[in-house]
Parts: sequence; C-alpha cells; structure tokens
Amino acid sequence: MLRQYFPILDWGRNYNSGALTNDLIAAVVVTLMLIPQSLAYAMLAGLPPQVGLYASILPLMVYTVFGTSRTLSVGPVAVVSLMTAVAVGDIAAQGSFDYYLAATCLAFLSGLILVIMGLFRLGFLANFLSHPVIAGFITATGILIAAGQLKHILGIEGSGQNLVEIVLAIIPQLGKINLLTLLIGVSVIGFQVLIRWRLKGLLLRLGLGLRVADIVVKTTPILAIAITTFVSWRYALDAAGVRIVGSIVAGLPPISMPSFNLDLWRTLAGPALLISIIGFVESVSIAQTLAAKRRQRIVPDQEFIALGTANIASSLSGGFPVTGGFARSVVNFDAGVETPAAGAFTAIGIAAVTIYLTPYLFFLPQATLAATIIVAVLSLIDPGAIRRTWIYSKSDFAAMLAAIVFTLAAGVEIGILSGVALSILIHLYRTSRPHWAIVGQVPGTEHFRSNSRHKVVTSPFVLSLRVDESLYFPNVRFLEDMVHNLVAENPAIKHVILMCPGVNSIDASGLESLEAINTRLKAADVKLHFSEIKGPVMDRLQRSHFLEELSGNVFLSQYEAFAALAPDAALKALGR
Amino acid sequence: MLRQYFPILDWGRNYNSGALTNDLIAAVVVTLMLIPQSLAYAMLAGLPPQVGLYASILPLMVYTVFGTSRTLSVGPVAVVSLMTAVAVGDIAAQGSFDYYLAATCLAFLSGLILVIMGLFRLGFLANFLSHPVIAGFITATGILIAAGQLKHILGIEGSGQNLVEIVLAIIPQLGKINLLTLLIGVSVIGFQVLIRWRLKGLLLRLGLGLRVADIVVKTTPILAIAITTFVSWRYALDAAGVRIVGSIVAGLPPISMPSFNLDLWRTLAGPALLISIIGFVESVSIAQTLAAKRRQRIVPDQEFIALGTANIASSLSGGFPVTGGFARSVVNFDAGVETPAAGAFTAIGIAAVTIYLTPYLFFLPQATLAATIIVAVLSLIDPGAIRRTWIYSKSDFAAMLAAIVFTLAAGVEIGILSGVALSILIHLYRTSRPHWAIVGQVPGTEHFRSNSRHKVVTSPFVLSLRVDESLYFPNVRFLEDMVHNLVAENPAIKHVILMCPGVNSIDASGLESLEAINTRLKAADVKLHFSEIKGPVMDRLQRSHFLEELSGNVFLSQYEAFAALAPDAALKALGR
Repeated sequence: MLRQYFPILDWGRNYNSGALTNDLIAAVVVTLMLIPQSLAYAMLAGLPPQVGLYASILPLMVYTVFGTSRTLSVGPVAVVSLMTAVAVGDIAAQGSFDYYLAATCLAFLSGLILVIMGLFRLGFLANFLSHPVIAGFITATGILIAAGQLKHILGIEGSGQNLVEIVLAIIPQLGKINLLTLLIGVSVIGFQVLIRWRLKGLLLRLGLGLRVADIVVKTTPILAIAITTFVSWRYALDAAGVRIVGSIVAGLPPISMPSFNLDLWRTLAGPALLISIIGFVESVSIAQTLAAKRRQRIVPDQEFIALGTANIASSLSGGFPVTGGFARSVVNFDAGVETPAAGAFTAIGIAAVTIYLTPYLFFLPQATLAATIIVAVLSLIDPGAIRRTWIYSKSDFAAMLAAIVFTLAAGVEIGILSGVALSILIHLYRTSRPHWAIVGQVPGTEHFRSNSRHKVVTSPFVLSLRVDESLYFPNVRFLEDMVHNLVAENPAIKHVILMCPGVNSIDASGLESLEAINTRLKAADVKLHFSEIKGPVMDRLQRSHFLEELSGNVFLSQYEAFAALAPDAALKALGR
Repeated sequence: MLRQYFPILDWGRNYNSGALTNDLIAAVVVTLMLIPQSLAYAMLAGLPPQVGLYASILPLMVYTVFGTSRTLSVGPVAVVSLMTAVAVGDIAAQGSFDYYLAATCLAFLSGLILVIMGLFRLGFLANFLSHPVIAGFITATGILIAAGQLKHILGIEGSGQNLVEIVLAIIPQLGKINLLTLLIGVSVIGFQVLIRWRLKGLLLRLGLGLRVADIVVKTTPILAIAITTFVSWRYALDAAGVRIVGSIVAGLPPISMPSFNLDLWRTLAGPALLISIIGFVESVSIAQTLAAKRRQRIVPDQEFIALGTANIASSLSGGFPVTGGFARSVVNFDAGVETPAAGAFTAIGIAAVTIYLTPYLFFLPQATLAATIIVAVLSLIDPGAIRRTWIYSKSDFAAMLAAIVFTLAAGVEIGILSGVALSILIHLYRTSRPHWAIVGQVPGTEHFRSNSRHKVVTSPFVLSLRVDESLYFPNVRFLEDMVHNLVAENPAIKHVILMCPGVNSIDASGLESLEAINTRLKAADVKLHFSEIKGPVMDRLQRSHFLEELSGNVFLSQYEAFAALAPDAALKALGR
C-alpha cells in the first residue's frame, strides 16, 4: 500500500553504486540541457528567467519520490508554458507581480486537479483527448509558439494569443527591426539546425557511439548560450539595442503558499484542467514509450499523483506548471539513467546554477532563448500525422482539423476544446448507430451470417436480427426504430429473434427498450425471442421481470431458435 | 422526396368518408379533453388562459401536414409548460407583456431547434437522455408541478422554482387559506380521482365497451369545469375570495412575428434546447408505442420537423411551446382516430371555443384548473420505475437519483442537466474500460475461451488476448496499459496475439496505439500478431503502413495463430 503511493520505497531498496554512477552521468547531461530550456520556457510563459529555474528544482525532487517512470524528466515544457502564458495573460499584465502570483497559483490548481484525478481514478477523462486531436493541437501550438517568438528574434514588440493577432501585431513593427538582434537569432537557429543535421553524422564518423552522439547534439544549446552571452558582454550589445535577460534573482527558490483568492481560482480552474490533462497525456505517453524499451511498468493513476505533487511543489517554490518533457526524457534515457534519483541530482545541479551562475547570465540575449525555443518547437510540427490521418479516417481528420484551425485562429483553449467536443460528438453519433444485420442460415451449416454479405436461408415469418453492440442508452432508440420499421415493412413476420453474441451488457434503458419492443410486437401479434445471450447479461436480466413478460423464448443458439420457429427452412438449409 | 417531408401527401390520397367519420369522432372526444388541459397548462406556464387555446389550434393543423404519427395529439403538456414557466420566469414578471412575448419567442426557438435537428439529422443528441434520467426527471417534475399548484387549491400566494422554495413560500401563508377555494379544489380532485377509480368499472358493468369506458373517464374533467363554473357563477363565489379565471380574450389567435431580440434569444437558447429534446423524446415514445399497435411507422427525423413547425406555428399564433401529449394521444387512439386529419378537426373545435365559449368561462375557479393539473401529473410520478432501476443497475440508479434530487432541489434545468451529465460520464467511464480476456485453447477443440472462466491450454511464450470492443480513442490508453503490464509481468512472453472478433472498427487513435504497442513490443523483443480481424477493419488498416511495420503476422483464425506460434501446446490441446 505504502509502496504503491511511494514508488521510491520500491526502487530505493536496491539502490547501489552502479545505479548511482549512471544516474549522476545522466543528471549532468540533463542539467546542461535543462538550463537553457528553463530560461527559455520561463520567457515563453512571460515570467522572469529564475522562475524557470525554480520550476526545475523542487518538482524534480518530488517526482523522484512519487514517480513510477525511471526515465521521465519533469520540468517546464513548451506547450504547457504557452498555455500558462495564455491563461495568466487574461488576468494580469506580463511582468506584474499579479501575473507571477497567478502563474504559481495555476501550478497549484493544476497539481491539485491531477492529485484528485489520481486519487479518485478519474484518469479516464484523459481518454477523451483522441490522438488526432492531440497531434493537431500540438502541431498548431508549435506554429503559434514559433510565431510568438519572432518578436524576440526581430527585436520588436507585438504579441497575441492566436496567429492572426500575432501577425497583425508584428506587421506594423517590421520597420523597427533590430539587425543585431536578428543576426544573433538567425545565427543561433542556424547553429542549432546545423548541429542537429550535421554534427551527429560527423561525430559518428569520428567514431562516437550513436547514443553519445545524440547526447552531444541535444546538449549543444548550452554552447549557444555561452557564446552569445560572451559576445553580448564583450561588445556591450545591449547598448546597441539588443535585449538581454538582465539581472536574475540569485539564490534558492522562495518557499511560500499560493494565493487562495477564490475569484482567481474560479478563473483559473478551466485552464488548469486543460493544462493538467494535456500535460498528463503527453508525459505518460513519453514515459510509456521509454519504459517499454526496458520492459518497465508505468502506473498511470500514480503518475497523476506524481505529476500533481510535482506541480504543487513547483507552486510552493515559486515555479509555474511543469510536466514530463519529451526531448529531455529521451536524453535522460540515452544517457543511461537507471532510477528517478537522477531527477533529484538534476535538481541539485539546477539549484547550483541559481546560486552561483545567474550573474553570468546577465548579458544573455533574449534572441538566443527565442531561437532555442523555435528550434525546439519545430520538431512538434508534424505534417505527416495530418496526412496519415486524412488517408486513414475522414472523421478523425475532421476532429484534428478543428483542433488545428481553432488553435491557430482562436488560441489554445478554444482550439483544444473544439477538437475534444467534435471528437466526442462524432463518438456519440457513431455509438448511437451500432452495426446490425439481418442474418440467415448458411446452407449446409448451423452458422448464421448477414444476408447482405452471404447467400443464406431465411424465412418470411421469422426475422433474425444480430446487433453488434451492447444495448445501452445511446443506441436503444435506434434499436426500437429498426425493429419497428422492419416489422412494419414485412407484414408476414410472426417472430423476431434478437441474436446477441455481440451484446456485452444491457443497461436500464436497454431493458426498457426491450420491454417496449416486446409490448409493441405483442400488440402486433409478433413474438420476440432471443438467442446467444451472454452469461453476465442473462444474470442481470433475471433481476427484472422481463423474461417472464417476454412473448417468446430465450434460445441458447441461433440455430436452435431458427429450427424451432422455422423448422422447414432450417432443415432445407441443412439439405435434409 | 416531397412525400418524405409532407406525409399528408401520403395518407391524404386515400382519404375517404370512413376515415372522415372516425377522425371526426376522435376529434370531438379530444376537443372535450383539450379544453380544460389548454386552460390549465396555460395557467401552469404562467400565461393567460387564451394562450393555452391558441397553442391548441395552429400547431395541430401544422402537425396534420408534417406529422408521421396517425394518432399523436399535439398541444400544451404539463412538463413543457412548467419548463416554459421556469425559463420565462427568469426574464420577466408573470402577467407582464414581456413574459408573454418571451414565451412565444421560446416556442419559436424551440421550433427552430427541432427543425434544424431534423434537417441536419442531429436527432442522435436525444439519445443521450437515458430512460432512467427521463423517468427520474418526469417523476420529480410531477411532484414539483403538484406542489406548485397547491397555492391555487389553498387560495394563497407563494411560488418557487424548486421544492424548497415552494414549501418555504407556502408555510408562512398557511393562516390565509381560503376555505371555499380549498373546498372546490378538494372536491374536484376527489371527483376526478373517484371517476378514474370507480367510473370505469361502473360503466363496464353497465355494458359499455372498455374503449368507450376509457374515453368517458378521460373526458370527465370538462364536467368538473362546467359544474364548478356554474356553482361559482350562481353563488358569486368570487365575492367570497375564490379566484376565478376572469375575462378571456375572445376570437381567433393573433398572427404576429416573434421577438428577434438577440439578447432574448441568447438567454432562451439553452432552455429552448432542453424543452425541444424533452418534448421530442416524450412525444416520439408515445407515437411509437401507439403506432406499433397498428404496425404503422414513425419517422423520427420527420417528427423533428413536424414538432418543430408546430412550435413555430404556435409562436406565430400567440402560443407557447407544445408537443405530443400522452393521455390525449391514448384517448385519440382509443376513440378510433385514423389519420392526422383528426388534429385539424380538433383545432377547429378549439377555435370554435375561442370564438364562442370564452365568455362562459369567466367564473371558472382557478382551483378547478389546479385540481385538474394535480390529478393529471399524479400519473407522471412512478415510484415503481425507481425501484426497478435500483434492482437492475446501480449506476443507472445513480443517474436517475441525480435527476430527481437536483430537479426537486434546484429546479428542472439543473435537474435534467445533472442527470444527463452523470449518465454520459458513466458511459464514458465504461466505454474507456472494455471487456477483455486472456484466452486459451479449449482441450479437444480449435476454440479459444477466457482462461478465467474455462480450463484452457496456454503457452508461457504466447499471450493470446481477446478485446470485446472496437478500438477507439476512449479505450486505447487502457489497451496500451493492459498489454504493457501483461508483458512487463510475464518476462517469458515472446509473442502477443490480439484476437479481434469483437473489434468492429479501429479509429486513428486505435491505429496509433497499435503502432505504439508494436514499436514498444519490438523494442522488448516481443512480436505482435493479430487473429480474426473483420473484413472492413482489415480494409481500413490496409490504408496505413501498419501492416508493413507489424513485427508479427495476421492470422485468419486464432487457432491458426496459436498453432503457428506454439505448435506443441496446440497439438497437446488437441490430444495428439
């Protein structure tokens, strides 16, 4: 029981020096990668750079205690940072203390929601984010984030919550572009793209292993930061109009309670729910992919608690919403991490940065961070997924398109909600029209198949109907209409057999519909029979009076039913 | 095509004097029943009595043209009238002209919504009102309506939108009860209850047929109106404090456009949607029950259009929302109605009442109408349904209870919405956890059954998994977790076979999950196979690259798969 909620008790018992060595190596690599990301995603969220560092200390330690993934690297990520900026931007002006308070409060609420979902097993809610909706949303968010960073690359003002606003804000400023800033931005992007495309091949040719080459490539953004910061300091670029990060508050994160202002909670509740679910879905999918490679196990309900407490920890230590990051977790995995202890070691690394290194980041150009963000989010844009979905399923594509178009045109919150709403609507629509078939006997056998796909023997007096779905409230009206119409169209029918091998359950609405069908058929002098009802379904039906009121019989097999009600046809089909 | 939208063209062609005679008789009977109901339900909706009559003229004529039910009697009904009072009561004071305008506007919106649902085939939305939720809602509404009429029976003030408000409003007034009013109310209730319980048996003993006896019983409320009006006039009861209906505007309904105030539309849109769906569901279920008795056919999509245009007609002729009424339709049916023409004849009857009879209703006591309403709604309260649902299914009972408790405690709108929300949540929860089983070979056969219910042969190296549900977004994460955990727990496994006889479709999320499972299993050196994939599912899978990337094979039958991957076990099971 205790171990279920504290997985650290599980892996901690066998912790040894081998694991320690591997975890330490991974922690160093991830720390190098996390420094630029923390600073950049804090900027993306509209927060001071140290807030990004705060969000990368305590949450990692907490995840070490509660997390079930051995490899997940928790901390700020791009999509959640943008969602934070949008949610908090509605409440306060960027740079204000209220904005910062709202961001920490958002982390607290988001954490609370995750913990509640974990404790009350509400994780199934996350299932209603379909893959195409997530893919569409992430692609559109990637585009939005990249567009939003353009102002930092161009050295101008102009922001917005959707693509239209961003473009309209940037166009009138185009005359004010700062060329030095643009030069830094483009250089950093070029440098990182080159490294991604070329360095790996070069390193491989130099004899490095694939894993090591990957790790080196992923940690080079820190180089871009070091170089551009040095250049910016050496040539006093800030005097030439290049915006720099400026003074970062040094020292460990401040511990304080989040705001308990009820109005603020009400306003942030919706965004917090979205952030929780999106963050959770992304994080668990990464964790599962990595865990599978080593046949390790992720416990989704416990992951809710782990990510939830990590967010609460972020909030209490002055940070903003966090979750598991894709690129970082892969690097962590490749660097050979063995246990979540690596997260705690990474946290110590980032803590050291906040204490000792912040003064050296004073001259770091904002354009460097923006370029780092742009390169990172370009990998989120996935046109292949759009094409594959279009080919595979038009209704899934419709939900995906809704997520993309509304995210770009109306912002992240409306975007994700319209995608979810459309996919649930399509789901409800489909559920309400189950697959069914009129069946007949396959000549020479006792099997029954659809009369539209096979040449089968039927009787004009007996209607055999197979429904390939549980009978429950979304589809019972459909069932009633169908039986009703078939009987109205075929006046000769004297018996209806419902063949139920595909009926896994019958809820109270299903029962009432069957009662209504039975009563109506009885009034029209038609008997209702059943065949192949599954055991658990039969058990439940016996709790009601339905079987007593049934005008016909319940048969074990469809052949038995058909042979009893249309003996001539059944024998003829057998060729006797 | 034309006949699809105008069913009158269908039955009208064969109209003859026999049908005419039967329709006229039914129309007279229904008119006698509709007069007190129109007046009473207008009072229930908080509207002047003539508005109830207006709602019983043009809507009936329009339904004659568009309706697919031969027997449905459209007009004001109790539940919809209460919902109208609640929706409009939020906007204007009862008795004001704005209140009246809002009620006609509500009818227009509700009609528009129904027509749109019919034209765009959105009828499946109504499926999400499960039977237990409707039953709970109707029972609670019956109690609310009866409680709300108490003030008229007691001759006091005091109204409210939920049971608590009503009780709290009535208690302080209990000292002001008007005894004469109470006497009239109790007498009328007693008279009608006696008639319901005793008259039928008496008439049957006198040699009347069952149908005729039923009709006489259902039309007696008009007698109560005639008698109490006469007494009230004869003894000038209004001078003694008995509230009377007073002057009713005489003449045909005024034809006018509804309000096109956008704010009003916005406020009424939600209630209009609820009224549309509740009204539609109730109406179609009555129509289908009656149609089945004669093997006639109801077209639900066309019923949306018919009820929609009837409501628009009600709005244009100064009426409020209408739908098919249960008791009236049964009487119509029993009286031998043959075609919807009877509705038009009933409309003519009611029109004659509005022109000639309204002066005679001046002295009609309001208590008589209230008593008529109370007796009518008592039949809505169905404790048996609550008990049956409790016995049959606890989760359906939970949704029903939510509808009852919230309707009584917080009013009709919150009541119905909480019931629907809870039943959809339960649905989503169940959908997200499909039934599955590890299967093995039944000794001596080539059949495969669940290893938890049968003694079967399995192999430690091959995991055979049967999922009894389509693979789509609500359950794919469950599938991933399940496969992942089973493989993590059984390190010996080399092959996983997904047995798919119950998989009717695989959406894009399902496909991606299968891809993820395939990739993860491949990383863990486990092959993924399939067996018994259905034809249409296979067709769709071939549009993707999944089958090429699949680490294992696709087998036609589960036995084939097992025999290929675990030949020793399969042969042993066959006893060879």
